[in-house]
Amino acid sequence: MKALEEKILAEGKVCSGDILLVGGFLNQRIDTDFIFRMGEEIHDLFKDSRVTKILTVEASGIAIALAAAQCFHVPMIFAKKSSASNFSGDVYKSKVHSYTHNKDFEIAVSKDFIKKTDSILVIDDFLATGEAVEGLLDIVKQAGAEIAGVSAAIEKGFQGGGDALRAKGIRVESLAIIDEMDGENIKFRS
Amino acid sequence: MKALEEKILAEGKVCSGDILLVGGFLNQRIDTDFIFRMGEEIHDLFKDSRVTKILTVEASGIAIALAAAQCFHVPMIFAKKSSASNFSGDVYKSKVHSYTHNKDFEIAVSKDFIKKTDSILVIDDFLATGEAVEGLLDIVKQAGAEIAGVSAAIEKGFQGGGDALRAKGIRVESLAIIDEMDGENIKFRS
Repeated sequence: MKALEEKILAEGKVCSGDILLVGGFLNQRIDTDFIFRMGEEIHDLFKDSRVTKILTVEASGIAIALAAAQCFHVPMIFAKKSSASNFSGDVYKSKVHSYTHNKDFEIAVSKDFIKKTDSILVIDDFLATGEAVEGLLDIVKQAGAEIAGVSAAIEKGFQGGGDALRAKGIRVESLAIIDEMDGENIKFRS
Repeated sequence: MKALEEKILAEGKVCSGDILLVGGFLNQRIDTDFIFRMGEEIHDLFKDSRVTKILTVEASGIAIALAAAQCFHVPMIFAKKSSASNFSGDVYKSKVHSYTHNKDFEIAVSKDFIKKTDSILVIDDFLATGEAVEGLLDIVKQAGAEIAGVSAAIEKGFQGGGDALRAKGIRVESLAIIDEMDGENIKFRS
């Protein structure tokens, strides 16, 4: 998505090697009109697939997942990052390692919300090593549902998570893939 | 909002006195079409006010805040619940007590995202004792911006947070206000 690449170049900030800050439009401060354009783009990519629900993980995946869900007219589910006191009933859980915060955490989704008959599109703001997405896919598998695919706004191609999923036969569509990132120099996959 | 009251009665579950579970449509699993109807309703209520940005707190406020932001065509900002490693620059912070989790936490917003010239509409999924909203309003005040008002999807009127804000002269508009909640018996403010 050319407009996203241009926005990353104009507004993104590269910090300490492999961190890209896009808090000005994608997380923390959401550029509302732009996030709905990204949602439409994800819908265009997957509109011929069967998608019955969209799954993401709190917190920064929620906005883009909801923007896409609006186009599909399907429910959007977000995994919670710990088994909070307001879960009702049984949950599917998966362990995820966060490289950003250097710790393991658990993600959980109530068993009421994913059924065997579902076909799930997994969406997140970033796809780097793929840990969070792998956790979400693990939950989809536990539920016995189908995986429609994975879509991220920004994939850090150089961290390998997206390509590892593609190698397993999962359809992964990222709106912008960064293959190299070095200070001000950002190189996108063409 | 009559449709929301009906949805609460049909799909909500009252647990242990003052907890209302609406994870099936408002948090965790989002009823996408319905959340955008709620966003339009908030826009209808505040469309004659000056609103330059919408502010909420992660995670379950994000969906309804974004749905409203789409109608206003303004940015949506969500406060983070702790000073995470991917904050850049200075942040406004406020301490909030969570009754649900019985602990204090800090919420923070980058100073880049709220300016003195802004007029902020604060949105959250729930308004109960008002702790989270008070923290968000404290951040708006620190930034020297104007408060356009507060809107929640569901206000637990019997916990007093909304009325305490109204008593301070803040415009609070909740889409459904529950004045009594006792097992299956939910009484809305008319």
